[in-house]
Amino acid sequence: MRLSRFFLPILRDAPADAQIVSHRYMLRAGMVRQASAGIYSWLPLGLLVLKKIEQIVREEQDRAGAVEMLMPTIQSADLWRESGRYQDYGKEMLRIQDRHKREMLYGPTNEELITDIFRYSIQSYRDLPMNLYHIQWKFRDEIRPRFGVMRGREFYMKDAYSFALGYAAAVHAYNQMFVSYLRTFARMGLQAIPLRAETGPIGGNLSHEFIILAETGESAVYCHKDLLDLDISTTSVDYDGDLQSVVDYWTDLYAAADEKHDPDTCPVAPEDLVEAKGIEVGHIFYFGSKYSEPMGAVVSGPDGKEVPVEMGSYGIGVSRLVGGIIEASHDDDGIVWPEAVAPFDVGLINLKASDEACAVACESLYGKLLAAGRSCLYDDKDDSAGTKFARMDLIGLPWQLIVGPRRLRTGMVELKNRKTGERVEISPESALSRLIDQQIG
Amino acid sequence: MRLSRFFLPILRDAPADAQIVSHRYMLRAGMVRQASAGIYSWLPLGLLVLKKIEQIVREEQDRAGAVEMLMPTIQSADLWRESGRYQDYGKEMLRIQDRHKREMLYGPTNEELITDIFRYSIQSYRDLPMNLYHIQWKFRDEIRPRFGVMRGREFYMKDAYSFALGYAAAVHAYNQMFVSYLRTFARMGLQAIPLRAETGPIGGNLSHEFIILAETGESAVYCHKDLLDLDISTTSVDYDGDLQSVVDYWTDLYAAADEKHDPDTCPVAPEDLVEAKGIEVGHIFYFGSKYSEPMGAVVSGPDGKEVPVEMGSYGIGVSRLVGGIIEASHDDDGIVWPEAVAPFDVGLINLKASDEACAVACESLYGKLLAAGRSCLYDDKDDSAGTKFARMDLIGLPWQLIVGPRRLRTGMVELKNRKTGERVEISPESALSRLIDQQIG
Repeated sequence: MRLSRFFLPILRDAPADAQIVSHRYMLRAGMVRQASAGIYSWLPLGLLVLKKIEQIVREEQDRAGAVEMLMPTIQSADLWRESGRYQDYGKEMLRIQDRHKREMLYGPTNEELITDIFRYSIQSYRDLPMNLYHIQWKFRDEIRPRFGVMRGREFYMKDAYSFALGYAAAVHAYNQMFVSYLRTFARMGLQAIPLRAETGPIGGNLSHEFIILAETGESAVYCHKDLLDLDISTTSVDYDGDLQSVVDYWTDLYAAADEKHDPDTCPVAPEDLVEAKGIEVGHIFYFGSKYSEPMGAVVSGPDGKEVPVEMGSYGIGVSRLVGGIIEASHDDDGIVWPEAVAPFDVGLINLKASDEACAVACESLYGKLLAAGRSCLYDDKDDSAGTKFARMDLIGLPWQLIVGPRRLRTGMVELKNRKTGERVEISPESALSRLIDQQIG
Repeated sequence: MRLSRFFLPILRDAPADAQIVSHRYMLRAGMVRQASAGIYSWLPLGLLVLKKIEQIVREEQDRAGAVEMLMPTIQSADLWRESGRYQDYGKEMLRIQDRHKREMLYGPTNEELITDIFRYSIQSYRDLPMNLYHIQWKFRDEIRPRFGVMRGREFYMKDAYSFALGYAAAVHAYNQMFVSYLRTFARMGLQAIPLRAETGPIGGNLSHEFIILAETGESAVYCHKDLLDLDISTTSVDYDGDLQSVVDYWTDLYAAADEKHDPDTCPVAPEDLVEAKGIEVGHIFYFGSKYSEPMGAVVSGPDGKEVPVEMGSYGIGVSRLVGGIIEASHDDDGIVWPEAVAPFDVGLINLKASDEACAVACESLYGKLLAAGRSCLYDDKDDSAGTKFARMDLIGLPWQLIVGPRRLRTGMVELKNRKTGERVEISPESALSRLIDQQIG
């Protein structure tokens, strides 16, 4: 993408009400713009990151055997009356009357709607287990939206719903999501910690939150320090095999959310206990027949008798992760994207757009990067070098390829790693070879 | 995808209120399920088609130079008061009060919101022209939703918005979208007819509807019969070059919507006039400064003076197209997907799942198709041959690869073309070669 044809409205200063670094950088880097309180437009740079994260989430859901579908944003209140949650949900639910005075709502979650689809579609245990997910906008009418996309009102979420016959199969479905969540976050460069958690308004009796550590997080984390050193990426996973041992490995060490932590009974020695703040990026629930029973989602079992299915639900905050990743990866100059979620792999800077040699060299580099499947933002604009450097640092692409007239006369360009700050003088061919052959990104 | 792990709830009969063939087939084939009046859940098979169509739309928008972003579904009423449309829009607008009693709405279109983004981001003509698009759910509270996804209330739409300095540049942006629309629909196997149209509630003075012919369509079409033979796919397009000649070629022949057609002044001889019904799948508008002037979206021109930008907007009904394509391509047995939008390239039918030779042959074919980048729905279920054939015909994948025990003993399988009905007995190797090397899909 040529910057001259892109839409990247950089702000010099973030609004004063942007309190945390991810919110400030997302506004300054032209990733989002607030449309109204807690509701954001995703500008092109922000949307690219959102889509990268969405795609990683999708691939790991598919890998774990979940099947994608898409439920609508607007739901009928009737279903929520069946489950008994219509009144319980309180003012966070955005309630709507349509032109025929029917009571509708903007879905904050989808247990009722998916259970309705299930009960009309599946009658036999032979069609189980099943896990259906969708990635869709949700709305929760927060009384005080804050922290940009981290606690917005309209937010993008992956939610999966598993259906199984019996407790053991339901726990296997739960374990599949548990393990896939660790892998999902690891692919984004995040170390997520699973915490035993309360089930809250979703209900049920088994639940884990997935937290990434960040000083600006709103969740308290208490865990054994060794948990921070575990690495999921070295674990090979067979989702049809025994997952309990993997889950046990990750849950044997103490880790609890605020409401589950009691200093008096905590088994961890004080010197081994980490007390920190974190951001909740995922939450999984096993809740048995809490919805299937009142809503009549039953299957006939092997013995011909009807039994309610056992369900779980599994959420990932896709739009929140954009902010969460920035909280975890930035410096004083701006964002530092992990390669897997970067909006472009490479930022190509033409230091003097009016110089013909620079333009020719940049066009060649740009064409070759694209032809090799690398995404590239080519800064072809007529701005000062200082403006270009600051802008490219702010938006945080992993690699900067810098072409200036003086260095180019000696046949060289500069390659900068955004994370380490390391700069090397290098020939264009060697730069391409490093950016393409080494399979960055 | 193995059918045993997919979610494909086939219905024997469609509900009686499904009046048109696309609605009936989408329900029967397990593509969608109604959540409430005019609001649908997209089940896995339907979502695959929706995403294929969305991706074609995206690629052709990108090719024409538009830049993708994403605006939220919920908007503030304040912006619509600035443009004067808040009252005009009537009961089709879903109006919402949030917990703080602020007036909000579920966006039926986005002229106001994009103009708001523009006015805060762009100050100089040097940053023009610009065309921003998004693909997002919209809501129009139709008094009588009908025809399934063709006239739903919550629907998926691509809408683009162009900004230019002066009339000539604005018309060039309009022409870019005009030409890209023809290409977009052609890639889906559709012959779209551009009709001169009224501008309606969007406003402005230049507008074309894009219509595909279908007996069940709600739009009247009057056009010269030769227009039906024009072919966009043979036209190579330079979006930065002169597009007026391409647009002229497509608009020289008479073509008018109902409200623009007057039999008394129609220049086409009766024997050359086609009078037909069609489905509106796209609509483009040039409306100058209708929104930029009241909302203060101005840029400083080359002379330093501030002028309102000239705008256009351009919509494609992404979810409606799913129904529209079925209306245009089906037979008595079910849907006949054009290859470009088919949910899977190949349906692999194992006629006897319990037969070991069949299972081994199918696993091998399935693995090789996937490895070659072909998508495949593998019917590995334990159903009767009749059930399997009927189901595969209903869901309309372009190719069926049929493996049965008797034929397999002679080293052969069957390959069926869904559209022509042609079946050939063929070796598995030759079948793979036809499905892979010939670059179907």
